[in-house]
Amino acid sequence: MIEKVNLAEKFGRFTDHWNPKIAGELNDSYVKLAKLQGEFVWHHHENEDEMFLVISGHLLMKLRDQDIHLDPGEFIIIPRGVEHMPVADEETQVLLLEPKTTLNTGSVVNERTVAKLERI
Amino acid sequence: MIEKVNLAEKFGRFTDHWNPKIAGELNDSYVKLAKLQGEFVWHHHENEDEMFLVISGHLLMKLRDQDIHLDPGEFIIIPRGVEHMPVADEETQVLLLEPKTTLNTGSVVNERTVAKLERI
Repeated sequence: MIEKVNLAEKFGRFTDHWNPKIAGELNDSYVKLAKLQGEFVWHHHENEDEMFLVISGHLLMKLRDQDIHLDPGEFIIIPRGVEHMPVADEETQVLLLEPKTTLNTGSVVNERTVAKLERI
Repeated sequence: MIEKVNLAEKFGRFTDHWNPKIAGELNDSYVKLAKLQGEFVWHHHENEDEMFLVISGHLLMKLRDQDIHLDPGEFIIIPRGVEHMPVADEETQVLLLEPKTTLNTGSVVNERTVAKLERI
């Protein structure tokens, strides 16, 4: 049985920040949903490109050489190896697409690392 | 230089239907944007799972054993091997995510097949 995913309904199921949930999988990737608020940590992913699509709120993606501001309906792809730090002044909902091997904090492992993702 | 993609701006750049354009790439996949209107063709993809996220309009995804109706903010993942036919009564904007090897008509090659995709 194939089921569709309604983003608003899924986002309504959780309230925590910086804790991506798996909302779908295809090929070698997961579609993840996350609520962001505040600053994350500088990190990069050694072998994975990562896509952030903003669903609500506003995302500032800090790179070492530029700041990129994203509103709903905008996405950015961070290529592997590129250091980045997501920042959200207000609560921001994002859809992430990345290989199943991707750790949220990439090359950094600290208290923000979520090793085991929930499915919603 | 990394650049964000604004979906509305990209959709404003083309008017044709059933002709996906490449709007980004990550890992082994393309992010594609397409405008759909009318019926497509029944097909499946032998080796690729495919994601459809509805941005505007309304998508009816016909499967052999069920119909799935998708509104904006909803997505569906069609696993490899599953026959499907997208139908859009009104013009519908979708974001597709699929491996770079994916042909729009899958196992069927006919006048609807787009072998060489434009980038926008």
